[in-house]
Amino acid sequence: MNFSPPSSTSAPINNVLYAQAGGVTAVINASAAAVIETVFANPNQFGTMYGAFNGIKGILEEQLIDLSYLEAESLTNIKYQPGAIFKACRFDLDPLEHNPAQYARMLDIFKTYRIGTFFYNGGNGSMITAQKVGDYCRQHNHPVNCIGVAKTIDNDLAISHCSPGFGSAAKYLASSFLEATLDTLSMHDTSTRFFVMETMGRNTGWLTLAAGLIQDVMPDVPLILLPAERPFNQTAFLNKVQQLINQKGYCVCAVSEGLRNQNGDYLTIANIEHTPERDYTQLGGVGYSISKLVSDTFKVKSHYAIPDYLQRSASHLVSKTDWQMAYDAGVAAVEAAKQGLHGVLPIVQQTSEHPFKWQFKNVPLSAVANLEKTVPDEFISSDGMNLTPAALDYFRPLIQGERPVPFKNGLPDIPVIPFQEVPKILPKFQA
Amino acid sequence: MNFSPPSSTSAPINNVLYAQAGGVTAVINASAAAVIETVFANPNQFGTMYGAFNGIKGILEEQLIDLSYLEAESLTNIKYQPGAIFKACRFDLDPLEHNPAQYARMLDIFKTYRIGTFFYNGGNGSMITAQKVGDYCRQHNHPVNCIGVAKTIDNDLAISHCSPGFGSAAKYLASSFLEATLDTLSMHDTSTRFFVMETMGRNTGWLTLAAGLIQDVMPDVPLILLPAERPFNQTAFLNKVQQLINQKGYCVCAVSEGLRNQNGDYLTIANIEHTPERDYTQLGGVGYSISKLVSDTFKVKSHYAIPDYLQRSASHLVSKTDWQMAYDAGVAAVEAAKQGLHGVLPIVQQTSEHPFKWQFKNVPLSAVANLEKTVPDEFISSDGMNLTPAALDYFRPLIQGERPVPFKNGLPDIPVIPFQEVPKILPKFQA
Repeated sequence: MNFSPPSSTSAPINNVLYAQAGGVTAVINASAAAVIETVFANPNQFGTMYGAFNGIKGILEEQLIDLSYLEAESLTNIKYQPGAIFKACRFDLDPLEHNPAQYARMLDIFKTYRIGTFFYNGGNGSMITAQKVGDYCRQHNHPVNCIGVAKTIDNDLAISHCSPGFGSAAKYLASSFLEATLDTLSMHDTSTRFFVMETMGRNTGWLTLAAGLIQDVMPDVPLILLPAERPFNQTAFLNKVQQLINQKGYCVCAVSEGLRNQNGDYLTIANIEHTPERDYTQLGGVGYSISKLVSDTFKVKSHYAIPDYLQRSASHLVSKTDWQMAYDAGVAAVEAAKQGLHGVLPIVQQTSEHPFKWQFKNVPLSAVANLEKTVPDEFISSDGMNLTPAALDYFRPLIQGERPVPFKNGLPDIPVIPFQEVPKILPKFQA
Repeated sequence: MNFSPPSSTSAPINNVLYAQAGGVTAVINASAAAVIETVFANPNQFGTMYGAFNGIKGILEEQLIDLSYLEAESLTNIKYQPGAIFKACRFDLDPLEHNPAQYARMLDIFKTYRIGTFFYNGGNGSMITAQKVGDYCRQHNHPVNCIGVAKTIDNDLAISHCSPGFGSAAKYLASSFLEATLDTLSMHDTSTRFFVMETMGRNTGWLTLAAGLIQDVMPDVPLILLPAERPFNQTAFLNKVQQLINQKGYCVCAVSEGLRNQNGDYLTIANIEHTPERDYTQLGGVGYSISKLVSDTFKVKSHYAIPDYLQRSASHLVSKTDWQMAYDAGVAAVEAAKQGLHGVLPIVQQTSEHPFKWQFKNVPLSAVANLEKTVPDEFISSDGMNLTPAALDYFRPLIQGERPVPFKNGLPDIPVIPFQEVPKILPKFQA
């Protein structure tokens, strides 16, 4: 592979940079593929397209890939790949006043590579970073358009009808929960009477409630859902478990990893991490806590599942609707760039309920940055332990359709895609 | 539905009874469907076919289903259904001298329903039950042929090349582990450096080692496998984690739920259950212990997944090879019955390595009852923390091929199959 050096300083500032940030989804790479394909389809408007490894951190460290050399086969593979093909960072720019060198370096990269359009594919927090990049560059006479590309399994993106990435995690969790419920149903008489599945969601119960979609297949399932939005009421919970086991012989439950008790303390078993910057409670383990509570209280066998990363990387069980939405998010971002927009994020707007249709609408990055959309009250039953018909109506369209992954020799055909970084031109920088 | 009462006492003793026992698999119902279809295909040899709910417990309690009324659509659905369609029990017959009434009741059921052939679909332990049923009935002048149908995700069935049910769990775990590994790879630079997945396996590491199949897709993956056959060596483990994180930036691990330390104690977080009969350690949680150990030792972010029932009920990700093997196990059982055999279990015999072919061979129930096949030494690397090329050769054929589940409205189309019990004829009996 021969590397093309950046264009000379007299050339137009029309190169493109794409990077990924934050927790991944099963379909984030559909957005990546869409950005790449749509940029390639507009050679008059865009110059060289670069990907950056590790989001803004990799940009600072000049970890760039010249996508002109991307092979057609790799572009196809990207669409099925879980994780973030360009690697995603959990790293934000420092406040400008604390670390001006970081910003100067970022500007240096954008100038050197003549980046005129920057696409940042991430969640709420990443939109702040995109905004900071744009503000600083523009204040320093480097005209860059910064466009967000939405993703998050948590579905907590403000304003947007839903978040690309959520539908696939919801489909995975509801399907898996259905299967495990049939397992529990089939053995409860002499074995497990309570099964609980822990879902991701620090402050929001979207994924937990989506597991309630199994009621479409099992209308009378003895079900308890514990979304993060409601403090855990142990007495009410245990009463409901007892009532359901008495009625049906068993009970299944889905719970948000971020469930808290009425004092606001997490029910997780995991410990608080002390880092120099902050104390951070790494969640995970509330499934165990809930399972043990039921087992100890009623002297019944109980089981718990913690799918953890499996729920956000299951490329083998992706919602076709969600996959399409993630692809369209990438296309919408490039369309916004073509219109010369800056500082916007295309969000999902529902245009028709039956059939479910949507379009992307550009909103200012600042309108969503660091906001968090929790589940509305009308989606949670009055006892706080189930979802409502309105919630089912909301969730159902998002999990429709399958996008099967190709298999090879018995496993998903998702080989690591080889990318070669461009030789570094600038001095070394440790972000 | 009209119920046909059992044939009069002058009729031949040629009715058939099928029941399921022990932990379920994703494909146990393929065996059920095969038994039903093959019995139906031989009306001259077999009379009415009954299924029993809840295995031997349901037989004692006269929880029977007349399968003559099974609809064609239900028979198709059975083949995709996870769990045990007739419900599986964790319940064995007491020793005869402790509970003669139990045996008398069992004989009463077999005589009343004129059961001439009894198929018991289960693991090692269930084969003892099948043997006891046959011995007692025959000693009391009721000529019944008892045939085992093999199933277990644990792959611990003695003599058999492998166990129907294992290949699907192995495929599910290896596929999921591959996806989660790509997720971890893509984020390790600023986030999780260690990911561990806990697999089932109380005393055997078959499922843990099968996760190592990801090396077929990622030959250089920084991988540690901790099978139950090797006591946990904390120092060696932590050294290997450090070495791999130093080399590759991250490390992924699969661990058996039944991992023990060098004193023979489980590393699980779960507690010991005290029942009147015995103390039983319910496993689950070693993934958390391992994750916390790494996180505390190296001050890195780590994550753990505990798929639990998801790994044995994933009808959406079944190995076609395994599914076919489970179906063939049912056919082989009926063929054994047609030959008038009694007290046998058809086990898997490999007949060709490339391509992988197998046949079923009848062995005495007593030859496998309560034995447990652990992973042979030649499948585990010398450091005890990986698998060998010989193990990969063994595992690979068992996960080949997909048997996609139909989806309906976004979820696997696996509705609960309605069965109606026959009206009870005999006095009530509490097993």
